[in-house]
Amino acid sequence: MIPVEPVMGTRDFYPEDMRARNWLFGHFKEVARRFAFQEYDAPVLEHEELYKRKAGGEEITQQMYNFVDKSGYAVTLRPEMTPTLARMILGDPTTKMILPVKWFSLPQCWRFETTQRGRKREHYQWNMDIVGVKSITAEVELLAAITTFFTRVGITAKDVGIKVNSRKVMASILKAQGISEQQFAPVCVVVDKLDKIGPEEVTKELVQLGVSEKTAGTIIETMSARSVEELSTIAEGADQEGLDELKELFVQAEAYGYGDFMQFDASVVRGLAYYTGIVFECFDRSGELRAICGGGRYDRLLSLYGSKQEASEVPCVGFGFGDCVIMELLQMKNLLPDFPQLTDFVVAAFSKDMLPNALTVAAKLREAGATVDMQVELKKKVGQTFDYANRVGAQYVALVAPDEWDKNMVRVKDLRMEDKEANQKDIPLDKLHEWRTFFGST
Amino acid sequence: MIPVEPVMGTRDFYPEDMRARNWLFGHFKEVARRFAFQEYDAPVLEHEELYKRKAGGEEITQQMYNFVDKSGYAVTLRPEMTPTLARMILGDPTTKMILPVKWFSLPQCWRFETTQRGRKREHYQWNMDIVGVKSITAEVELLAAITTFFTRVGITAKDVGIKVNSRKVMASILKAQGISEQQFAPVCVVVDKLDKIGPEEVTKELVQLGVSEKTAGTIIETMSARSVEELSTIAEGADQEGLDELKELFVQAEAYGYGDFMQFDASVVRGLAYYTGIVFECFDRSGELRAICGGGRYDRLLSLYGSKQEASEVPCVGFGFGDCVIMELLQMKNLLPDFPQLTDFVVAAFSKDMLPNALTVAAKLREAGATVDMQVELKKKVGQTFDYANRVGAQYVALVAPDEWDKNMVRVKDLRMEDKEANQKDIPLDKLHEWRTFFGST
Repeated sequence: MIPVEPVMGTRDFYPEDMRARNWLFGHFKEVARRFAFQEYDAPVLEHEELYKRKAGGEEITQQMYNFVDKSGYAVTLRPEMTPTLARMILGDPTTKMILPVKWFSLPQCWRFETTQRGRKREHYQWNMDIVGVKSITAEVELLAAITTFFTRVGITAKDVGIKVNSRKVMASILKAQGISEQQFAPVCVVVDKLDKIGPEEVTKELVQLGVSEKTAGTIIETMSARSVEELSTIAEGADQEGLDELKELFVQAEAYGYGDFMQFDASVVRGLAYYTGIVFECFDRSGELRAICGGGRYDRLLSLYGSKQEASEVPCVGFGFGDCVIMELLQMKNLLPDFPQLTDFVVAAFSKDMLPNALTVAAKLREAGATVDMQVELKKKVGQTFDYANRVGAQYVALVAPDEWDKNMVRVKDLRMEDKEANQKDIPLDKLHEWRTFFGST
Repeated sequence: MIPVEPVMGTRDFYPEDMRARNWLFGHFKEVARRFAFQEYDAPVLEHEELYKRKAGGEEITQQMYNFVDKSGYAVTLRPEMTPTLARMILGDPTTKMILPVKWFSLPQCWRFETTQRGRKREHYQWNMDIVGVKSITAEVELLAAITTFFTRVGITAKDVGIKVNSRKVMASILKAQGISEQQFAPVCVVVDKLDKIGPEEVTKELVQLGVSEKTAGTIIETMSARSVEELSTIAEGADQEGLDELKELFVQAEAYGYGDFMQFDASVVRGLAYYTGIVFECFDRSGELRAICGGGRYDRLLSLYGSKQEASEVPCVGFGFGDCVIMELLQMKNLLPDFPQLTDFVVAAFSKDMLPNALTVAAKLREAGATVDMQVELKKKVGQTFDYANRVGAQYVALVAPDEWDKNMVRVKDLRMEDKEANQKDIPLDKLHEWRTFFGST
């Protein structure tokens, strides 16, 4: 026997799972459409080099599905989409790309992690990015898309919140405390664990990084700030432009109508090295789930990759929104609809010689737009056809039999009508495309 | 500089490419819906074992993107979808699967081939399969889906044809000529090249396989048959049931209305080892392109994989239809529509203090279903906003400025109306969702 499960840590999508996925992706795509973002895609197989070139030490680069192909070239299943987006922007074959661009994608991303409940080795990730805009309104726009999605699927600001911080501000504060640029990222990684391991443990780890105990205390106090005002009061040396941006972001979020989702949180720094400005993270208020989505500004990635743009930096902002955690949340909140199989017609031949005629009927109904399940095996009893029709969620059964066929008619039964007089009609072949009108609907 | 091209032999989908792909996939999905096939999907990463277990010697197993993952497990990017389908049928977690099932999918498949013009290392492949049906009507159903797709996109029976053969019949004929079951597959591979290398070369290669020159001649004659009747006349020992099935297939294809696409061709055998019955292949009549799609019956794959079904065989039939060759054909025939970027609105703020109000306007229009590109950077001149609007294919520009805002109005201009009186309106904020009516449309 072959293995019947998918490769460990990955998911099959049986038809019912697929209907759920299409429902979720449909919302992602519809939001992106309303925000006028254009869809793009790229191969799941990427140059390994794209991830090696990023400032090192990130967990993500240790967990790649990387290998050497038959020609000796180092490739990997993409762990995330942002480096690919940057590659495509730099490689635009038309060389006519005019910034800003607003793009979205729904890539499957891969990380070789230890599998555990709710933690897979692949997930799909809704990505939206704006390239070429320095203004904070770009972040505001992305956050509006995220909250529009929540509202569409019934998730409110009581269910989830979005924590916002500014790496620019944090770096300036830490610099005033003597934390160098090189130390900044590892310090962020440690402070990121404040909720999990507590201030004592964090202090211990910061000291291991060469930070004095006194400075560690100041950092923890700083990163505990829960409002921009609080931060600017307690922290010395904070970048004023960065603080103004943060304030402006909250004003614009209010105008957009999603202010109640938003909160400042100085401890949010995100795990990727390339972020340079605003970072944000969406969390479930019950505290049961991992981050729902996250993103931020990464103004230096394209120049790191070798942008030929005249400006040394191409401003970028984006987010990734995985498909797993949100489905858990929707399930938890009873917000997932049912996804039944739905079929308009089962078409069946009464006998072998009626089969070609039944095919004609199926073709006519499909041409009129109906979902038609042609019963490809003759059944001995009509009851079997009705059982089959119920199983595939069919509304109508069209039984192609000699008596009606001789009169150029097809007998159609509406399985959802209870009235036994009205639920069965003989419909002329040339009126099949108007089947609905025979049952009193339009 | 990082590599800006995608990995060799693979494709990026920039927004315009993506619109074309979505158009094509939209047709694939719509046809599948009308035929009441249910969508499924599976990870692009598969157990290598699935392909090793198939009867060997196929080109496809020599060209895999296979590697060993960080846990030492042998995986591969799937070269085709059929083994995955078989795995999922066997592994149905609900264990409630009632046959027949009709499934479709749009997987990306990978083969490490020598790259050349029009030959990539990945393609998307529309797959439709029926599992659990012995009757030839299953094949007829799949061929109906293929021809329905062609008709939808404007391809006629003058552009393409579908060659049909029966491996069951061919095997019975070759058996009568002393060709063993083991020899059958390699003989097929050689005869498959008849068009390319001619009868002399084929004879030579058959003799190398241990076939006598006389038998080789008979085989070539047999495989040159271009009608079922011709075949049954010239060939001895042909399986009668197989011949009857073939004839019935053409009768049913006629009833379905796609008979003119169909032709018998005894030389079509397909390159995969698992086919057991009807095989088919769609070709472009100009002869310029490779096969457009292909498929057939594979009744023994599930039992080879270890089916626990009581019956020793689970009858299956399916096809794969790649996305590359069909796009070449559509281009060749000028059947590809344009795929311009389309936007309803560009919303712009006249000044910085108007920005929050502009965000409100964007949110209102999106709530009404419009595609709204919020101009996230303030422009110095109104003309820049109109340039931007033209570039993103916008129909309307909503300029949020103080004079109108004070009256709770927004000025909207229709860029596609030439009448300079009628093309500009001040729309009240609470009527924005009815914007179309202000320009005389509904």
